[in-house]
Amino acid sequence: MTTLRFTKGHGTENGFVLLLDEHGDLDLTPETVRFLADRRAGLGGDGVIRAVRSGALGAGAGADPHAWFMDYWNSDGSTSEMCGNGARVFGAFLEAEAGEDLAGGLEFATRGGPRSLVSLGGGRYAIGMGGYILGEGGFDSAVEARGLTPPRPALSVDVGNPHHVVALASVEELEALDLTVAPAVTPHPRAGSNVEFVVALGERVVDGERRGLARMRVHERGSGETRSCGTGACAVALAVRSWAGDGAPDVWDVEVPGGVVTVRIAPDHTVLEGPAVLVATGEVTLP
Amino acid sequence: MTTLRFTKGHGTENGFVLLLDEHGDLDLTPETVRFLADRRAGLGGDGVIRAVRSGALGAGAGADPHAWFMDYWNSDGSTSEMCGNGARVFGAFLEAEAGEDLAGGLEFATRGGPRSLVSLGGGRYAIGMGGYILGEGGFDSAVEARGLTPPRPALSVDVGNPHHVVALASVEELEALDLTVAPAVTPHPRAGSNVEFVVALGERVVDGERRGLARMRVHERGSGETRSCGTGACAVALAVRSWAGDGAPDVWDVEVPGGVVTVRIAPDHTVLEGPAVLVATGEVTLP
Repeated sequence: MTTLRFTKGHGTENGFVLLLDEHGDLDLTPETVRFLADRRAGLGGDGVIRAVRSGALGAGAGADPHAWFMDYWNSDGSTSEMCGNGARVFGAFLEAEAGEDLAGGLEFATRGGPRSLVSLGGGRYAIGMGGYILGEGGFDSAVEARGLTPPRPALSVDVGNPHHVVALASVEELEALDLTVAPAVTPHPRAGSNVEFVVALGERVVDGERRGLARMRVHERGSGETRSCGTGACAVALAVRSWAGDGAPDVWDVEVPGGVVTVRIAPDHTVLEGPAVLVATGEVTLP
Repeated sequence: MTTLRFTKGHGTENGFVLLLDEHGDLDLTPETVRFLADRRAGLGGDGVIRAVRSGALGAGAGADPHAWFMDYWNSDGSTSEMCGNGARVFGAFLEAEAGEDLAGGLEFATRGGPRSLVSLGGGRYAIGMGGYILGEGGFDSAVEARGLTPPRPALSVDVGNPHHVVALASVEELEALDLTVAPAVTPHPRAGSNVEFVVALGERVVDGERRGLARMRVHERGSGETRSCGTGACAVALAVRSWAGDGAPDVWDVEVPGGVVTVRIAPDHTVLEGPAVLVATGEVTLP
């Protein structure tokens, strides 16, 4: 009977099971990941995150061997480059379980390359989300969804993974959407796409800073509708800023079903800010 | 910051959060239950079960004050009389965390009255499920479901809560059902009903004992389709035995999406047998 020490946490209701494996002793398999992420027979989560020192991964990792590596697994047992909401929870986990202090920032490694993470205090973290590419002309595609007639124009946004962002006119229209069925994007994206629906809600001043406000829902490629999507929030902020034109804010508060995140847009990258909550720690018995 | 010690377990993939509160010190509120059962922001489960001595509940509990009380809460923060799958996990929990030995049986209290539970070894438990009433004439109602045309005859079965059981002709027909929409029962049951769809798969001999075999899916009143339903399995065994007529087995193995349970039918009650798995223990931080 094998038991593992685990932590469970969430960022805007994206939930994760976290494992501390500093020296890479753990042989994490797709079967174990699927068990841990199983909401009925296991612990339950949208993903599993293993914290391991880069040096413990063997030669070729290419990073500072002392740097933490965020080993991210999807609930289906596949791996992913990165997860913005997961990275915040990873930060809170390193502070609670590995004795790190992220007030001064932390460089860490992912399958998608090095990233940086900083604690903002009050259980909030900021994570650098890398570069972005927007489609040209404001709208370059169309999206059809159940509960939305006729099809709407959309903007493709690449933030490391593919997104299509659709502007809606009202919160009522957003709430009426049925995202139990995948929206259809035209032209059809070869590798699929995440699709965001957004309503711009104007501007406001927070702590002396001018910020845009938007509310979104998201249909994630392969996962269906989720409570939050970090890259999706970045795509949404980039799209609404581009639609708003010159003088639009570079900082956007984005309301997702699971809470609120803040996206800061720099010329060559975005930063995602939001909460991270550690819910439980314990021992799990593998089947 | 309040932390609670918890256990997470499941019976045929009905999942529960369990709390040991021998002396009734814990002020369990609907808010706390909803948090614990929340699959994204909390631990996640179909229900929350508190183990407390009857005597700690104050006067009027009416039971042996030393008897354990199974304080069962639904994930929405309401309470229920009993839960068959939950009772097995409650048994495994009392053995692991409260030092009980259920090999010789255990009488315990529920909101639905006293019950008895026995360990069968190998992580399996048997729970007495109380009396039953079958509708008359084999079929006394009709059920309409998405993916099933035309409507089918059904039998009403009361096993403490209301059920309607529909006989299907094949496993293909069972798999083709779309239970994302609640089936419609005619005549309309005033307080709603759980609806089971079942395919009888013949008989077999297990450990020298003649048993019927059936496969079911269930739409639970208020919860939608679930991986398992203990009272539903009892209702299904009672219905298929009544349809099979004289000489039909009194013991039925019932395949549910989350596993297999066994129902033993006595003249005045049923007994539900099945597995219970304790997955994890730890400390949860309340928000």
